[in-house]
Amino acid sequence: MTLLKSWVESANTSETDFPLNNLPYGVFSTDGTARCGVAIGDQILDLTALEAEGALTLEGGALLQSGVWNDVMSAGPIVWAALRDQLQQGLTAGAAQEAAFAAHLVAQADVTMHMPFTVAEYTDFYAGKNHAINVGSMFRDPANALPPNWLSIPIGYNGRASSVVVSGTDVVRPNGQLKGPNDELPRFAACARFDLELEMGAIVGQPSDGMVSVQQADDMIFGYVLLNDWSARDIQAWEYQPLGPFQAKATATSISPWIVTKAALEPFRTSTPERERPQLAYLTEPGPMLYDIDLEVGLAPDGQNESIIARTNYNEMYYSAAQQLCHHTTSGCSMRTGDLLGSGTISGAEKENRGSMLELSWGGKEPMTLATGETRSFLEDGDTLTLRGAAKGDGYRVGFGECTGTVLPAPAVPDWAK
Amino acid sequence: MTLLKSWVESANTSETDFPLNNLPYGVFSTDGTARCGVAIGDQILDLTALEAEGALTLEGGALLQSGVWNDVMSAGPIVWAALRDQLQQGLTAGAAQEAAFAAHLVAQADVTMHMPFTVAEYTDFYAGKNHAINVGSMFRDPANALPPNWLSIPIGYNGRASSVVVSGTDVVRPNGQLKGPNDELPRFAACARFDLELEMGAIVGQPSDGMVSVQQADDMIFGYVLLNDWSARDIQAWEYQPLGPFQAKATATSISPWIVTKAALEPFRTSTPERERPQLAYLTEPGPMLYDIDLEVGLAPDGQNESIIARTNYNEMYYSAAQQLCHHTTSGCSMRTGDLLGSGTISGAEKENRGSMLELSWGGKEPMTLATGETRSFLEDGDTLTLRGAAKGDGYRVGFGECTGTVLPAPAVPDWAK
Repeated sequence: MTLLKSWVESANTSETDFPLNNLPYGVFSTDGTARCGVAIGDQILDLTALEAEGALTLEGGALLQSGVWNDVMSAGPIVWAALRDQLQQGLTAGAAQEAAFAAHLVAQADVTMHMPFTVAEYTDFYAGKNHAINVGSMFRDPANALPPNWLSIPIGYNGRASSVVVSGTDVVRPNGQLKGPNDELPRFAACARFDLELEMGAIVGQPSDGMVSVQQADDMIFGYVLLNDWSARDIQAWEYQPLGPFQAKATATSISPWIVTKAALEPFRTSTPERERPQLAYLTEPGPMLYDIDLEVGLAPDGQNESIIARTNYNEMYYSAAQQLCHHTTSGCSMRTGDLLGSGTISGAEKENRGSMLELSWGGKEPMTLATGETRSFLEDGDTLTLRGAAKGDGYRVGFGECTGTVLPAPAVPDWAK
Repeated sequence: MTLLKSWVESANTSETDFPLNNLPYGVFSTDGTARCGVAIGDQILDLTALEAEGALTLEGGALLQSGVWNDVMSAGPIVWAALRDQLQQGLTAGAAQEAAFAAHLVAQADVTMHMPFTVAEYTDFYAGKNHAINVGSMFRDPANALPPNWLSIPIGYNGRASSVVVSGTDVVRPNGQLKGPNDELPRFAACARFDLELEMGAIVGQPSDGMVSVQQADDMIFGYVLLNDWSARDIQAWEYQPLGPFQAKATATSISPWIVTKAALEPFRTSTPERERPQLAYLTEPGPMLYDIDLEVGLAPDGQNESIIARTNYNEMYYSAAQQLCHHTTSGCSMRTGDLLGSGTISGAEKENRGSMLELSWGGKEPMTLATGETRSFLEDGDTLTLRGAAKGDGYRVGFGECTGTVLPAPAVPDWAK
């Protein structure tokens, strides 16, 4: 596929994240009222307005008036395809709808972005093999870094949906219980090893009741976002045995404001790697279910230039989101519109491909040097982190925009907690 | 306190779970429409009807018309107290409201009960010391059964809200990945070690943003339910390292249909046990925050008589729900109306006080003999499990009704999963 031409001129370049090939969905406001929109070049088309005036009609009635995408997600794949068709036709160069649509373009520079959907529940996986090996080596035993179940199970745990925020939301460093290996007792203090996790998030559009196959799971997915699962490594190290991470992962999870649909990503499907161990039949993929998406992480100290601290690709995952979602339903667990699945941290083979500072600085033993000359083992207050991602086509890209957040100092510990 | 007399005669006995002292909230239907009600003796007072005709008025408008209790929960403690006052006055023997209220009584025997509230998110804790020691001895190392952090942290993990069901809902045995200690590879098959967990659930009524104290946490709690966290022990054993239980806990969590309010439980407050290790200041309780509630578990094989397989008390917990909720907010995690916190399995000191079959049969090594003569290590298809609980006053009890569920056979493994 090559670049599709739009009458929105800014969409017709190889640099924009949002050509006509993409058409990602988000929620924006100019006056405080959240509206559904689609990104095209450096503009947003106001779909709430278009639907209200009848220039856009969807089976099942008004689906774009609630200020989140959940109504469209619930409506299912036929509606998803119909909406994309109408938008792609209306935004194509020479389209008859140009005048009607152009009246509802808003510059991206002039809007505030909001959460694109209401998160039902949030599950985070651990499906990056390099990440699992790196973390296993540091937290447990380098000789047996990969847990015994890892090659058989897409390991996941339930996260906290109330902590999911949209890109641009500041992230307050957490307090928590900390205990060094030589401390007799823990203390309650600010996290000193605050970290990012570079992930992709898959959004469940269609619900399920009972076990689904990998193909059915893929069909249920509405689209993908960039996802940063902020992590307090020192809180995690002390709390996570035996029942997994809890408060270490409950401060914030940031997502990109744009949901890139499965349809836009179709040309970029790729396969998960060959299995080292026979895989249980239920996890077999009927076709390629991962995506070739270049990813990078930028870190800008307070008011200074950004350094790119990691580059990797979503194709590093060992399990696809479809496999994860299928596994999620094995026990009979119902899935719902708005469930969000984090892929797990995406780390490549080399040091510069690692998707967390824990790995990049090897637990703080090998601090990074930034372009500013400063060093970092973990995040400092004032640091702004930005994830970026794009699938690269022939003369075009399908991008996610930015997933960014600035670290603010921890709250003062209240007197009653001292 | 002694028994308060009502004009509803069935409420004036020492045997009923629902005297005027209690007034628990639930959701029922007679014709398919879910309505909010309060239990009194063997009757339910239809509060949705009373509010609709103006015989009951609450600050903030119609709060009892949505078929769940979330609107009342959101309205806060002043409304909670005002509602209880109106109900207690109107149901007291000799009340002027008798005729108006009596027109809206429905026999409990004639209704279907529904989920009393919409669960926002579900967190399960691990705060019973005997349970933690028993499980640690079986799954890990008997010499170091209690994890190093256990005496400092109310250990918890996020569960799956979509799996929470009301008492009376059948529970389908899950399939999942199973691997015996001597198997080379896992297989996908029906769980063979399906279990209960006897717990109490605390319901968050008021939201929070940022860390709260134990007292603030207690103030946020709307009430309590009985809770059975159905658990697949064989799935759990293979999946839970390193990130905690996932599909083993995602089949179902049953709750009692009646929410017993904090106000009804006030006379039964009791303290958590003395700490063996200095406790961090933030977890200090300003007063007694546990409750003295007798609990029991009955098991009835398909169509046969029930045996009581365990008796214990909520006062066996090491951490109160208020402490757990406080800890839940330490990282800045927002809590929401409708969050449900499971206490963790409640096991007493003796074998007959253990709140799970894993403990009662010591991992299957010591099967129980039921009154029917059958033996059990774990649950069999057709078994009906029933949790019961009541705080005991002077000539009255504040009970929760029953939390029950019948185990149905696992779904056939689909061909594509074989």
